[in-house]
Amino acid sequence: MAITSRVYLDNAATTPVHAEVIDEITSVMREYYGNPSSIYTEGQKSKELLERSRDIVASSINAEGREIFFTASGTESDNWAIKGAALRYFGQKMHIITSRIEHHAVLHTCESLAKLGYDITYLPVDEDGIVSPEALAAAIRPDTAIVSIMMANNEIGTIQPIKELASVCREKKVLFHTDAVQAAGSLPIDIIDLGVDMLSLSGHKFGAPKGIGALYIRKGVRINNFMDGGGQERNRRAGTENLPYIAGFAKAITISMADLQIKADKLTQLRNELIEKVMNTIPHTRLNGSYEHRLPGNANFSFEFIEGESLLLMLDHMGFACSSGSACTSGSLDPSHVLLSIGLPHEIAHGSLRVSIGTSLTSEIIDQFVVSLEQIVMRLRQMSPLYEDFIKNKTTPIIPCTKCYKEQIMKEV
Amino acid sequence: MAITSRVYLDNAATTPVHAEVIDEITSVMREYYGNPSSIYTEGQKSKELLERSRDIVASSINAEGREIFFTASGTESDNWAIKGAALRYFGQKMHIITSRIEHHAVLHTCESLAKLGYDITYLPVDEDGIVSPEALAAAIRPDTAIVSIMMANNEIGTIQPIKELASVCREKKVLFHTDAVQAAGSLPIDIIDLGVDMLSLSGHKFGAPKGIGALYIRKGVRINNFMDGGGQERNRRAGTENLPYIAGFAKAITISMADLQIKADKLTQLRNELIEKVMNTIPHTRLNGSYEHRLPGNANFSFEFIEGESLLLMLDHMGFACSSGSACTSGSLDPSHVLLSIGLPHEIAHGSLRVSIGTSLTSEIIDQFVVSLEQIVMRLRQMSPLYEDFIKNKTTPIIPCTKCYKEQIMKEV
Repeated sequence: MAITSRVYLDNAATTPVHAEVIDEITSVMREYYGNPSSIYTEGQKSKELLERSRDIVASSINAEGREIFFTASGTESDNWAIKGAALRYFGQKMHIITSRIEHHAVLHTCESLAKLGYDITYLPVDEDGIVSPEALAAAIRPDTAIVSIMMANNEIGTIQPIKELASVCREKKVLFHTDAVQAAGSLPIDIIDLGVDMLSLSGHKFGAPKGIGALYIRKGVRINNFMDGGGQERNRRAGTENLPYIAGFAKAITISMADLQIKADKLTQLRNELIEKVMNTIPHTRLNGSYEHRLPGNANFSFEFIEGESLLLMLDHMGFACSSGSACTSGSLDPSHVLLSIGLPHEIAHGSLRVSIGTSLTSEIIDQFVVSLEQIVMRLRQMSPLYEDFIKNKTTPIIPCTKCYKEQIMKEV
Repeated sequence: MAITSRVYLDNAATTPVHAEVIDEITSVMREYYGNPSSIYTEGQKSKELLERSRDIVASSINAEGREIFFTASGTESDNWAIKGAALRYFGQKMHIITSRIEHHAVLHTCESLAKLGYDITYLPVDEDGIVSPEALAAAIRPDTAIVSIMMANNEIGTIQPIKELASVCREKKVLFHTDAVQAAGSLPIDIIDLGVDMLSLSGHKFGAPKGIGALYIRKGVRINNFMDGGGQERNRRAGTENLPYIAGFAKAITISMADLQIKADKLTQLRNELIEKVMNTIPHTRLNGSYEHRLPGNANFSFEFIEGESLLLMLDHMGFACSSGSACTSGSLDPSHVLLSIGLPHEIAHGSLRVSIGTSLTSEIIDQFVVSLEQIVMRLRQMSPLYEDFIKNKTTPIIPCTKCYKEQIMKEV
């Protein structure tokens, strides 16, 4: 069964730009060409829109305008937060704590600091992908410059106990940063309630274009600059401000926050329906990540005896756009570091599928998707020598029959 | 005489986005939402546009596609080139050479490296703002990691002998980077002819929006990454690619390179007319920067006895958008480091005006501008105690009567 129009199931990789956001950006490109740093009329007009946009973004996460700094991506925000905090104490505090399942924008940033002599602690996670506040407390040292733990994981959707983790850091007087790139647009973010010192956002995860992000830096927190140059962003982030995208970012965050709970409820319901149907239909399938502490739109499966890339290409051919995990590492042949960290063996991590849904999904499309998915998995398994061995009763599968697994997770909840 | 519509004379700070570029960006926002790193149809469609855009940008500066890396600004390109080259040899080559009149994206980058232990040589410039290749040769040491000299100055428009400077570095086997942010769109750039290893570009200086740049890195040149994270840009610059702006950047560079010489000739003629009329009309006025080695659209004047900010505000009131120098430092009360470096005393550097013209300028508007400028300068001088002292023959002006100065520069050419 081929479907007639394409179904986009990779909203975690990026989202289409919202129509209202496109209009806003186009109109700003036309009408606001003054450099916001210029003192004449055209510049001041731009400056006002810049500050209005900043206030909108700030209020959407319960922050103050002066705590919001616009960047060009979530990646830049992560680089700035971690390198800025670490390099401020270069030669003094040379220890950084993060988790094993962070986005590469955090992990590779830590690796590049390691080359300058920093010592990095990578906290383990449990089988759901959760970082333990106790383990964090035990890892903090007198020379810890910064702790960075993501709010929600981009691959398996696991939501971390950020409030507890931040509280540990506050008690020990260590800076705490969270990469909220995957969470924003899906979860409410209240800076005061969370108690974090820094938080990264990326617009293209919630209807703004790729190329605009923000870093929240709590007032009073001092970190080094990352982007050195002119005096923009109150002398803290150089580079002429990207006003069209900044205004678009403000518009997108407003739209996405407007009916967040309603959207989240709808996504959760659709997602649970999807998970149930997939698990009921396809044996030897595993749901990766927590069932309970999970982003509303995220499902992540492992299908034993399957190679993920073939699965994706065949789904694409049938009209479905999904991914095996992070788009940012799609060129790599290594299995996901996230799936390995929650304890999956290599061969299972290789056969994984991330389905990240939007609110336009329907039960009918879910049914079509599951039918196609089942066909593809069956076909790929028939081509697999490992599956042949299993069928001939030569081997025991790593993932038990799905029904047993489902009973198991249902019991947990 | 007030003019009826506004006249924008600050094209060096930023340019309006070209109408065709706006159309391109809007259409890409609508039609290309796939993440270029995703392997399914939507992603591959985006990837193709990304690579097509890269090839367009490459060919416009006689480079290869694989030598072009998209960034979010000229500032990011400068940060990356210098920090990437320097940190690659951290602990080994701890010396950097630049000039005193670089943009702050270069100077502040060097300052932040100095805090990590790097030794920075700031080469002096002559009264026209030119760096001497001999001085550069003498400054290079065995531990020099990189040399960075801008192609054309953003304040005074002085064009450096990049080919000679790059040749010195090539002979001594030291990496050479040039910030061509202000030059691109005004001067032809041929990477092979110039012989540079790295070159920074920024889209908003030639009709693309603010928030998109590129770094040319000659094939074979290895520097550290600056933006750590995902595997974008062949693992060298992380962050989901800003495809709408990247396509817009390619469109803008194509348009701006199309009739570069015709535009440059027109701008040069208009600029010389402007310079001549200003110098003939307003006494005790100085043209800053080289008369000969100058960007086509740049004029930079100092008016003795005048405070620059008042001049700008009054010009704005009369309908003219100009600046005192770099917009990136407009919040600062310090006089321009560029003007001080070419030997201007503080009081003269404070009374400076940068006029950066576009091709829509006409002789008629120049006349209106010069009339307004003269009125304002006269009014401000009448309010100045220093001017009063001079009028009463108590003091000698620093800038001689303009006619003498003009005879002097004409003799030089």
